[in-house]
Amino acid sequence: MKLPVVFLSALLAAAPALAAAYRAGNAAELARLTPKLQPGDAVVLADGTWQDQALVFRAHGTEEKPITLRAATPGQVVLAGKSTLVIDGDWLVVSGLLVKNGDGPAEGIAIKGSHNRLTESAMVGGTYKHFLRLWGTDSRVDHCYFAGKTSGEPTFQVEVAEATPNRHRVDHNHFGPRPPLGRNGGETMRLGYSGQSMWNSRTLVEQNLFDRCDGEIEIISSKSCENIYRENTFLDCAGMLTLRHGNRCVIDGNFFLGHHKKGSGGIRIIGEDHVLVNNYIEGVENGAFWITSGVPHSQLVQYFQARRCTIAFNTVVDSKGPYVDLDAGIGGSGRLLRPAEITVANNLFAVPPGGTLFKGTEGEYWRWMGNLSSGAPAGHAGAKVADLKFTRSADGLLRPAADSPARGSAEGNFPVVKNDIDGQPRPGEKLDAGCDQSSTAPIANRPLAAADVGPGWLKR
Amino acid sequence: MKLPVVFLSALLAAAPALAAAYRAGNAAELARLTPKLQPGDAVVLADGTWQDQALVFRAHGTEEKPITLRAATPGQVVLAGKSTLVIDGDWLVVSGLLVKNGDGPAEGIAIKGSHNRLTESAMVGGTYKHFLRLWGTDSRVDHCYFAGKTSGEPTFQVEVAEATPNRHRVDHNHFGPRPPLGRNGGETMRLGYSGQSMWNSRTLVEQNLFDRCDGEIEIISSKSCENIYRENTFLDCAGMLTLRHGNRCVIDGNFFLGHHKKGSGGIRIIGEDHVLVNNYIEGVENGAFWITSGVPHSQLVQYFQARRCTIAFNTVVDSKGPYVDLDAGIGGSGRLLRPAEITVANNLFAVPPGGTLFKGTEGEYWRWMGNLSSGAPAGHAGAKVADLKFTRSADGLLRPAADSPARGSAEGNFPVVKNDIDGQPRPGEKLDAGCDQSSTAPIANRPLAAADVGPGWLKR
Repeated sequence: MKLPVVFLSALLAAAPALAAAYRAGNAAELARLTPKLQPGDAVVLADGTWQDQALVFRAHGTEEKPITLRAATPGQVVLAGKSTLVIDGDWLVVSGLLVKNGDGPAEGIAIKGSHNRLTESAMVGGTYKHFLRLWGTDSRVDHCYFAGKTSGEPTFQVEVAEATPNRHRVDHNHFGPRPPLGRNGGETMRLGYSGQSMWNSRTLVEQNLFDRCDGEIEIISSKSCENIYRENTFLDCAGMLTLRHGNRCVIDGNFFLGHHKKGSGGIRIIGEDHVLVNNYIEGVENGAFWITSGVPHSQLVQYFQARRCTIAFNTVVDSKGPYVDLDAGIGGSGRLLRPAEITVANNLFAVPPGGTLFKGTEGEYWRWMGNLSSGAPAGHAGAKVADLKFTRSADGLLRPAADSPARGSAEGNFPVVKNDIDGQPRPGEKLDAGCDQSSTAPIANRPLAAADVGPGWLKR
Repeated sequence: MKLPVVFLSALLAAAPALAAAYRAGNAAELARLTPKLQPGDAVVLADGTWQDQALVFRAHGTEEKPITLRAATPGQVVLAGKSTLVIDGDWLVVSGLLVKNGDGPAEGIAIKGSHNRLTESAMVGGTYKHFLRLWGTDSRVDHCYFAGKTSGEPTFQVEVAEATPNRHRVDHNHFGPRPPLGRNGGETMRLGYSGQSMWNSRTLVEQNLFDRCDGEIEIISSKSCENIYRENTFLDCAGMLTLRHGNRCVIDGNFFLGHHKKGSGGIRIIGEDHVLVNNYIEGVENGAFWITSGVPHSQLVQYFQARRCTIAFNTVVDSKGPYVDLDAGIGGSGRLLRPAEITVANNLFAVPPGGTLFKGTEGEYWRWMGNLSSGAPAGHAGAKVADLKFTRSADGLLRPAADSPARGSAEGNFPVVKNDIDGQPRPGEKLDAGCDQSSTAPIANRPLAAADVGPGWLKR
């Protein structure tokens, strides 16, 4: 297929006028100035730097023929200063951009419309309000690098609408270091707001590396319903994956590798019907699972009680604890309702000397089954004491040995658990407790390193 | 505008072939046989009876130019025997049909697609599985009459999809007598199923008359989220409006007039975040508000605990009670969780001799404020005893007199309550307790009678 190639830098001598029309909301002028792109077109940006330019890429591609905006040489088209990019339409692909030390009261890159994709791009440093903000539905952000935001507000923000779930996919990105902000607003990723939190976002966040995301306690702040966080690696982050508002999220097959960094942690749970399975948490200092108490008659901005959540088939090792905080935050900020109807099943908790297994008091109707612990004082019926026989395997993870009592020990029936953290299928019965099922099937999911994620051009 | 008029009875000598193609799922044959209707077309059915015919009305109109299928003389086009009608497309209007004593394993009329309307039609008697079944979105069923179903399964069924709320509007219909079925499955209306119950239907059910709908205890069985039941009249029904599954429904400004019929009742509440305001309940024998206990770790088919529901500004008079059952069903079917975080505010409860005000024991963190009761023994802090001075007004409703202590007595702040049951605006402060705000504004909502609803031709 022969693609028409348009050099935007030549065509858009009109760019400042376009920007002015965009800022003024002048739709007619925008339409007049915008190149008439057709499905299948590719716009190639000449290498160079766009200084203080508001770029708008607005077009309508099709599934078979998307419209592409890409750098002539990936990484050599730079947006700098107050430059911004709006991607607005359908089936648009943007690739190869570098946004560097940008600044502005809104977002550096905005994605609107549906079925758009930002890939192979990097946003490094700067003080935009957000680096990236996603509206609309069915868009994808993949193989990008985001790091070094020094201003307040989340690096990556998803806007959730009442009418339609977002269904975005965010995958294979490298979220690089973000320094501590020293106050609320240092999230690396936030999906929704409290006011949007009862709507379904259904965003899939998978196979991303969160690398020293130290902005605040919430690495990810999930503030909407039915998001899936799957097979991500949280490496040396001074924070926790936080289900802050909203219900029915899934956290499956993630690695939390804290290396005993101050502030490193696992998962905070607020809200209802969340499912947390197959996660591996090692060396965190701030606790593995905080199941949070709620405010009676909670407003959207407050704390809903954790209810009907499932925490199963997770492995926590070599961490300070608490491994499970049973009523996190009880009594503070009006939180009087202890978590209720929580299922804690088939987890492995290997506690080092001086570590804390459980903290607090459980609420009504918890179900405990099949949990095994080592190293902690006996006495809590929720976890049977056993010698778990963890050994360091070649890939660096602690796994129970073949003769560990964890093998084949799982109790109850959890049809939602189809695989283990390696992506290996779980059998129909006699499941292993913890995130690792002993299996000879190929390993599809490993802790991610920088080489596995982000733009290819940044690694060459 | 000149409309092409097509007499379907002449055109569709092919009708049996069409029906055969439809049953066989033969899309090509269906397309060949179906008249090519254009936006703005009207298909007029000649008066007469369709016996054992499967009619399919499939077309695509537009908002400005819907496509109409109507009876030459309203009420004189009869579908009988095993006849069925499928309305499938967009912006289609069907009017003036009479479906009489129909029979079949599925529904008499199916509505699929979006923005379709069934109006001025009647379905009387018969044993279809459902009289009417609605898929899709944004359709309207209005000014119809449905009565006399003698088989199991709901008269009126809405199918809820995960991806998109239905947003149907069901208004100004007359749901006439349905005899007791003697078992579950006698609902007059059901919105969703347990398996669909966590999805948003957002169907608006307003200004319908439910008249001796005695099929079973659930007149309406709400099994989806965010439905609105507004300004309906439940007249002499041996049942209750039941929020059986799902969350966040609103029940506002309805009249429940039981006339002391056996089995007559008000509202059953199961689930979370429902809002019940401005309802008038008189002469019911089976209780006014049943706030239902839940099953720990409830499955979708069981009973979720009632939580964070608001019952405010309702009036209950001359009923046997309980006026409020605080933990309905506790202990039965595994229901161990008492309703929690319930707000009961500014209701008027006038209890006759021998009536019961409250039954059961409240769960955690209920809020009680501004409720007034008369006739019941003192002792429950939730309702202050007062002489409410109800008098029968010209429109037949019991209203507090001008010097009733209910006037201006409401406590707390309920911004959701903007009007009273008459449709008169509520002031910014000093609201009256109960469903009636003293006001000189015009009355927009009254108890419905047969003359107010259903097809015009049925009343002439």
